[in-house]
Amino acid sequence: MKIAIDAWGGDFAPHEILKGVKESYTEDCSLILVGPREQLIRLYSEYQMDEARFPIENAPQIIAMDENPTEAVRKKPLSSICRGIQLLAEKKVDAFVSAGSTGAVMAAAWLGLERIAGVERPAIVTSIPNSRAYTLLLDVGANVDCKPRHLLHFAVMGAEYAKITLGLDNPKVGLLSIGEEENKGNELSKAAYKLLKSREHMLNFDFIGNVEGYNIVDGKADVVVCDGFTGNALLKFGEGIIELIFKIIRENVTEPALVMRIKETWKAFDWSEYGGAPLLGVEGVCLICHGKTRAKGIKSAILKAKELVENGIVPAIRERLSRLNTEEARGAK
Amino acid sequence: MKIAIDAWGGDFAPHEILKGVKESYTEDCSLILVGPREQLIRLYSEYQMDEARFPIENAPQIIAMDENPTEAVRKKPLSSICRGIQLLAEKKVDAFVSAGSTGAVMAAAWLGLERIAGVERPAIVTSIPNSRAYTLLLDVGANVDCKPRHLLHFAVMGAEYAKITLGLDNPKVGLLSIGEEENKGNELSKAAYKLLKSREHMLNFDFIGNVEGYNIVDGKADVVVCDGFTGNALLKFGEGIIELIFKIIRENVTEPALVMRIKETWKAFDWSEYGGAPLLGVEGVCLICHGKTRAKGIKSAILKAKELVENGIVPAIRERLSRLNTEEARGAK
Repeated sequence: MKIAIDAWGGDFAPHEILKGVKESYTEDCSLILVGPREQLIRLYSEYQMDEARFPIENAPQIIAMDENPTEAVRKKPLSSICRGIQLLAEKKVDAFVSAGSTGAVMAAAWLGLERIAGVERPAIVTSIPNSRAYTLLLDVGANVDCKPRHLLHFAVMGAEYAKITLGLDNPKVGLLSIGEEENKGNELSKAAYKLLKSREHMLNFDFIGNVEGYNIVDGKADVVVCDGFTGNALLKFGEGIIELIFKIIRENVTEPALVMRIKETWKAFDWSEYGGAPLLGVEGVCLICHGKTRAKGIKSAILKAKELVENGIVPAIRERLSRLNTEEARGAK
Repeated sequence: MKIAIDAWGGDFAPHEILKGVKESYTEDCSLILVGPREQLIRLYSEYQMDEARFPIENAPQIIAMDENPTEAVRKKPLSSICRGIQLLAEKKVDAFVSAGSTGAVMAAAWLGLERIAGVERPAIVTSIPNSRAYTLLLDVGANVDCKPRHLLHFAVMGAEYAKITLGLDNPKVGLLSIGEEENKGNELSKAAYKLLKSREHMLNFDFIGNVEGYNIVDGKADVVVCDGFTGNALLKFGEGIIELIFKIIRENVTEPALVMRIKETWKAFDWSEYGGAPLLGVEGVCLICHGKTRAKGIKSAILKAKELVENGIVPAIRERLSRLNTEEARGAK
């Protein structure tokens, strides 16, 4: 297996990226660092890494976190993000991991990668801790204006992802709304409810109907589906609340032993450690990590990339969508 | 001043409501309890309350928390919610406070109360703690499908509300989006951005442009405006996260002194204690409290209702919207 890693993406690149990659070395998987060759070679000597174990894909251009994503991707084809996506598009690698600008990775993936046949829109899926394990939330930013059909596809893709990463046979998938009853919600969610309900017998999961914001963290659903605007706002609001709560607690609690224990609790909520959010629906495994990802997060992302490649997330989605589209066409006859 | 309180609304009604009302007694304000007279009279003897100080408005019907709101409101004109709204509509009271079904209060207000002239849609505004005070978020559920113009009006109403409740002269108002740049967001938020920007010189606040989910809690904005679907989902997600974090902390922390201190921290985040979320844009002060509101929350709500009536939130919104509409008409000529 071959995984390309953006050596120059994220607030703690390149050092934390290199550390994470070095610690992820195994014989059965080639880890390719994408970034400016000369600088990488200097860093390799510092970190006692070598090109035999960690091949370099030269990418002399750098996309900054605050650049306009679409412009940056157009202007910088030799950036680490564009080169990484290119390697994936050419099937020279099985997966690409980046902690660089989310917008730029998305733009590059949008332009450079093929969509899986039958998928109308890709979606970014993220894992959120709940009271017993994780709930997967999608889309968290790939598509801000969605149609009911996009949400149906998000549900199918999210369910396949849940089967692999949560080890579930029949994941419970909920549609985000503002009340449980089917007549609750906005135009999009109400239409999506009807569509999902009408396809229930064709689906690869247990559609549990509408769920509310708190159901993302109470364990009721394994997967929650929403448009990318709402999902992105939710995710960032959640990050903000968690940060604020722990800030206040730290101000009130000074005992070292306790501060330590609270830090440990906090880790369960530190989304930058989760190993990245995949862009589902494209031909290839593409993991977008939090900009604040450090070595540990890169390690998790590499492990997750391996897991997704080994368990065939791309063929699983391809096969599922194809089957759904066939059954829909048959039903329409 | 006269304030009507729904004696039969919420998970802890009628006992906690009565306790809260009793503790809120002052000579300058008449507190009218709306509920089934006979049962209230029996409770009055238990709580040593009397009709001279706490007049009763008989409302023999009860709307349960899980009833279909619109149907319940149509079928039960003698419910505490409908009678309370009716008192407000007839200007027999200055404010109405209910911890009953949010949907039913909204439906009753929608049917029974006039909109303030010039307001296209009412909105529910809620206060969320940030690192220094509170950020006001609206709409959190009154309008799930919004137009840019609705968001403009929410911003104007939210700013007037911030002036009164946060004591600010020139509140900072942000538009919820998924990036700070003006071209970030969904169709609605991008169009609303343009509209707000084009009206900037006519506004009663400092429009700070797009804000992201975490800006609701980091103190960047005093008011954040969004559609009611996103706002409701955010609010409930936030509640869920807070509950989950404190549950995990409690499991890890057992020292009584510390448990106490963490409980105190938690109180700052307990939205059921905040004294209700007003429905802005209707003729009258109508406060919707959390279903889990206890006596303390009812006391806060009564105080907030007084503050809003005394400071003339309704005339302030009326005057502001009228001025905006006039200036827009002049600009269009």
